[in-house]
Amino acid sequence: MSPCVITTLLGMGRWEPDAAGRLREAAIALYLERGYEQTTVADIAERAGVTARTFFRHFADKREVLFNGSEVLEESMVSAVTDAPADASPVAAIGAALDASGEVLGDRHAYARQRSAAVASSVELQERELVKMARLAGALTDALRGRGVGEIEARLVAETGVTAFRVGFERWVTDPADDADLSTAVRQVLQELLALRG
Amino acid sequence: MSPCVITTLLGMGRWEPDAAGRLREAAIALYLERGYEQTTVADIAERAGVTARTFFRHFADKREVLFNGSEVLEESMVSAVTDAPADASPVAAIGAALDASGEVLGDRHAYARQRSAAVASSVELQERELVKMARLAGALTDALRGRGVGEIEARLVAETGVTAFRVGFERWVTDPADDADLSTAVRQVLQELLALRG
Repeated sequence: MSPCVITTLLGMGRWEPDAAGRLREAAIALYLERGYEQTTVADIAERAGVTARTFFRHFADKREVLFNGSEVLEESMVSAVTDAPADASPVAAIGAALDASGEVLGDRHAYARQRSAAVASSVELQERELVKMARLAGALTDALRGRGVGEIEARLVAETGVTAFRVGFERWVTDPADDADLSTAVRQVLQELLALRG
Repeated sequence: MSPCVITTLLGMGRWEPDAAGRLREAAIALYLERGYEQTTVADIAERAGVTARTFFRHFADKREVLFNGSEVLEESMVSAVTDAPADASPVAAIGAALDASGEVLGDRHAYARQRSAAVASSVELQERELVKMARLAGALTDALRGRGVGEIEARLVAETGVTAFRVGFERWVTDPADDADLSTAVRQVLQELLALRG
């Protein structure tokens, strides 16, 4: 296979061959160029070279273009908690979830940077991002409870894990090194959180 | 003064004498009775016995009825961080902010319970609450940085403080004891967070 085909199969090209990827890139470009509010679904479809009908086959609305991968992240992190060794502490199980986040998103540094810039440009997108993080905290709390962790500790550990993810993700996105590692960044923040003292 | 007048002056009566308080109680009652989406500003004003014009003198829209006290909470917590002794650690300064939250909200247990139930009933209100908490974390981060705390530590400690506030506030709201103390609840959660180990 040519390098181009391999890149295509990996879904990592500047212009992904699939319609969903092209729509995502088009949406981010337009949100940054003219603003989220001023961009329509028709604009995004046109930029991506597809019809509005194709857009709606992939996404419910222009906001969801940037969020329809959320379930993959959440499911991976929840599975990591559920599948952690039976004798792993709650914090160790959350550490495994943070590693999983790195595996899911770690090879998307360039995309993550662009997406973060687009989210930061719109209050509505920022709110949607907050909702995503709150849901993630709820799902991780449930996963910890499924391991027999008490409700209060489960909530605290899950919230701590999500804080580590959010702060570590931000550090990773703003890290100028192209080979910056997301798992390392979020694990580092978790260690710093656990080391906090009064 | 009669007990009634004293209650009135303290703003703690079931029906607060001021229009803003009456509108707030009317809004919560209606959101719980018929749902946030199904309630209009006209409904709230009518229930409170005032005109829609009076409503808009106090609140920008029906969502803000439940949030226009947010600045008071944020300013009190930020001031506590800023005014903490110069040699207080970042975590100690955040502890002072948590104490301040108890002073601002601690005598509003019954109201806090009703408001929490109303917020929980609507996705839009939940999102607004998430935004409020994110802003609070940002303001506390800035206040810590103003004390000379480095950016990364400031962010971590502020996020930890907001987690302690959120989880402690929830525990307080769901505590059946009428004399439950908010400051104690949030301080307790902060201690539990700091005690987490891998």
